[in-house]
Amino acid sequence: MYEINETHDPNLKSWVESANDPNTDFPIQNLPFCVFAPLNERIRAGVAIGDFIADFEWLTEEVLEGSAVPYFEFNRGERFDLSNFRIERLMALRYELHKIFREDADLTVKELASHGMWKRDEIAFTSPYFIHDYTDFYCSIYHATNVGSMFRPDNPLMPNYKYVPIGYHGRASSIVVSGTDIKRPHGQNRSDQDAPPVFIPAKNLDYEMELGFFVGKGNEMGEPINIADAEKHIFGVCLVNDWSARDIQAWEYQPLGPFLAKNFATTISPYVVTMEALAPFRTPAFEREEGDPQPLDYLNDAANQKYGGLDINLEVYIQTEKMRNENIEPHLLSRSNTKDLYWNIGQMLTHHASNGCNLQTGDLIASGTVSGKEKDERGCLLELTWRGTEPLELPNGEQRRFLEDGDEVIMKGFCEREGFRRIGLGECRGRILPA
Amino acid sequence: MYEINETHDPNLKSWVESANDPNTDFPIQNLPFCVFAPLNERIRAGVAIGDFIADFEWLTEEVLEGSAVPYFEFNRGERFDLSNFRIERLMALRYELHKIFREDADLTVKELASHGMWKRDEIAFTSPYFIHDYTDFYCSIYHATNVGSMFRPDNPLMPNYKYVPIGYHGRASSIVVSGTDIKRPHGQNRSDQDAPPVFIPAKNLDYEMELGFFVGKGNEMGEPINIADAEKHIFGVCLVNDWSARDIQAWEYQPLGPFLAKNFATTISPYVVTMEALAPFRTPAFEREEGDPQPLDYLNDAANQKYGGLDINLEVYIQTEKMRNENIEPHLLSRSNTKDLYWNIGQMLTHHASNGCNLQTGDLIASGTVSGKEKDERGCLLELTWRGTEPLELPNGEQRRFLEDGDEVIMKGFCEREGFRRIGLGECRGRILPA
Repeated sequence: MYEINETHDPNLKSWVESANDPNTDFPIQNLPFCVFAPLNERIRAGVAIGDFIADFEWLTEEVLEGSAVPYFEFNRGERFDLSNFRIERLMALRYELHKIFREDADLTVKELASHGMWKRDEIAFTSPYFIHDYTDFYCSIYHATNVGSMFRPDNPLMPNYKYVPIGYHGRASSIVVSGTDIKRPHGQNRSDQDAPPVFIPAKNLDYEMELGFFVGKGNEMGEPINIADAEKHIFGVCLVNDWSARDIQAWEYQPLGPFLAKNFATTISPYVVTMEALAPFRTPAFEREEGDPQPLDYLNDAANQKYGGLDINLEVYIQTEKMRNENIEPHLLSRSNTKDLYWNIGQMLTHHASNGCNLQTGDLIASGTVSGKEKDERGCLLELTWRGTEPLELPNGEQRRFLEDGDEVIMKGFCEREGFRRIGLGECRGRILPA
Repeated sequence: MYEINETHDPNLKSWVESANDPNTDFPIQNLPFCVFAPLNERIRAGVAIGDFIADFEWLTEEVLEGSAVPYFEFNRGERFDLSNFRIERLMALRYELHKIFREDADLTVKELASHGMWKRDEIAFTSPYFIHDYTDFYCSIYHATNVGSMFRPDNPLMPNYKYVPIGYHGRASSIVVSGTDIKRPHGQNRSDQDAPPVFIPAKNLDYEMELGFFVGKGNEMGEPINIADAEKHIFGVCLVNDWSARDIQAWEYQPLGPFLAKNFATTISPYVVTMEALAPFRTPAFEREEGDPQPLDYLNDAANQKYGGLDINLEVYIQTEKMRNENIEPHLLSRSNTKDLYWNIGQMLTHHASNGCNLQTGDLIASGTVSGKEKDERGCLLELTWRGTEPLELPNGEQRRFLEDGDEVIMKGFCEREGFRRIGLGECRGRILPA
């Protein structure tokens, strides 16, 4: 795992003024990667700093004047994304960009660099990776227990839960980047158990607040990844909204798990916040209750026990169409934290590859809904409204059991720790369009 | 759906002698597509004819002398596969190749064409498509009932089965082409319910005999595919072996479905047998029993009812290491037919996209285990040995409950109908290596 080093120095400032705002997600200590296109221009890779996105190829060529090692590793096909660069090169580049953006950088460097930067509202993001495979875990024991107790009150948690990081494959093609509108899906609904199912627009549309991480370096098929090496394969994290149609899910999910209830859309935030930037925000692995089994050996080592967790605050907001029209700010629905996950990212990755399954650069792995112990830490409406039985009250008097057309869900993530600069994951937004 | 036309004429012969063998999978009436590389040469696209694979780019350039429309649609990146060509162009090309290979073709054409052909043992296949997303269905009601009755004797079939084509997402990265060795995976095993699970090599390794089909043309996200249009999106079929570790599966699969029990490997046959070649082998949709519900409207139309099914014979053989050493031929384990599938390929595709999920060119969709009503029509060992309780007897006295190291599983598929040439799907092979 990454050590704390000079790039984490909280006193370091940037000549990019907005990066010094104490509330920015993107101080010089963050520098997350992204892929974007300015209006009518080609797609390119960048890093976020303050209110700007810097074109890092341009910076490499113009500011570093070719002194930088060549970053392009692969042929460019029709798709351009971060997999065009090796993870080691990206990490080396991040150090160089760090120097460019420091307050004490050379005047000519500042002058030159400022020509390779775009304001965030001048560009459009695309997915940082063209995602080949997407896996979704189920790592919050609070979420699993809540959902389980709605469906099986006597036996909320399956006997495998404390041994197996439960996961399933998601749909990669329908992963979209923050800001993409989400059309309410049709599907089979059998709320009336006495009648045949009907094919109608989903009634119980929900979000799920998740943490995602990108595989930076894969493994060969048949070659598992040791828990001690897991983090070497992880490049960085993003926010994930695993949109879910609960009525479709309830009817279709047995015996093989969710399918059409989930695969109509998944939204990700556009930034990859690197594991290095997250170094100050590591926490011990989940502290299991007295009497609970420890993870099996292949999912357990001293470093994972000590630093396997992540202290990332996650917030979900809603703004309904009516609220937008009335200029009412988005309303906070929940606040949870990834340190409450029962299984951490190293354990997810190692478990995934433990049977020899080959992971690939750009694979997205998500945590499952991140819920905490408390009621206001529940990461989806299914839990917050207890399956719709306890509707939420919004500030303008509206009520919600599930999402309605026009609702926008806004997810945020950030890390704070005494003695360090706050860094953020940006936003993950999506608005519901009618079916 | 495709009409029967002159390419299906059973009397048509080829100047490629091996294509006229009545037992060949690849007469001139088939011409399936594949992707391959001759030893030390670059990857290219081809069609199979008799014992040969013809390089169709070469044929296009040299034999058709540029008269053909340009076939390349996309930039070539690091990966080369059939998605470099539009499905309409491939279908047009198939007509031209048909003319080239006819017995009555021009002498100069024959002479020229013969230089663009490779014997099957001189080349190595790769996957016909770089598969972005892989979905596995569960469309055999006999398989679902057998498996269900092992786990829930009183209630073998879930109430959703006759309404919902049950499916789940599989892992795309670990799909390999026929002939690739399969390493026995490790995983959590809890056969002893009184002890904690152990992480050991899978004991109950199994195959599943499935039919796969490739999406030739996708749909936009949010735009479902009407059942009447479904087949326009399907390019062709292949054989699929969905390797399954039953002990891992039994412990991990609740509540989100199979994961590590399946994603260590999936094997496909290398040929895409086109829907056009299959035109003579269409059958009515599954005839449901009296009292069973009809498919909901979105999965039902007159054409699908009349021609939605496929009459493809599937066979599974095993050859153990001992049998190989004793020169004993592979032993037939089962024979089943895709016409017994409860849900057909058009219904699978339409259901998949019914929530707006975007399918893409090269997606692989598989049927799930194809089992028939009879005992010798069961498409996996789990069913054939009834969870290992009724071991199989092999010709040399060996017994099998599940697969052992060194076992090779060989799957075959073919279509036969009075008045038409037999066409085949080729083979799908894989041998188990020790963990």
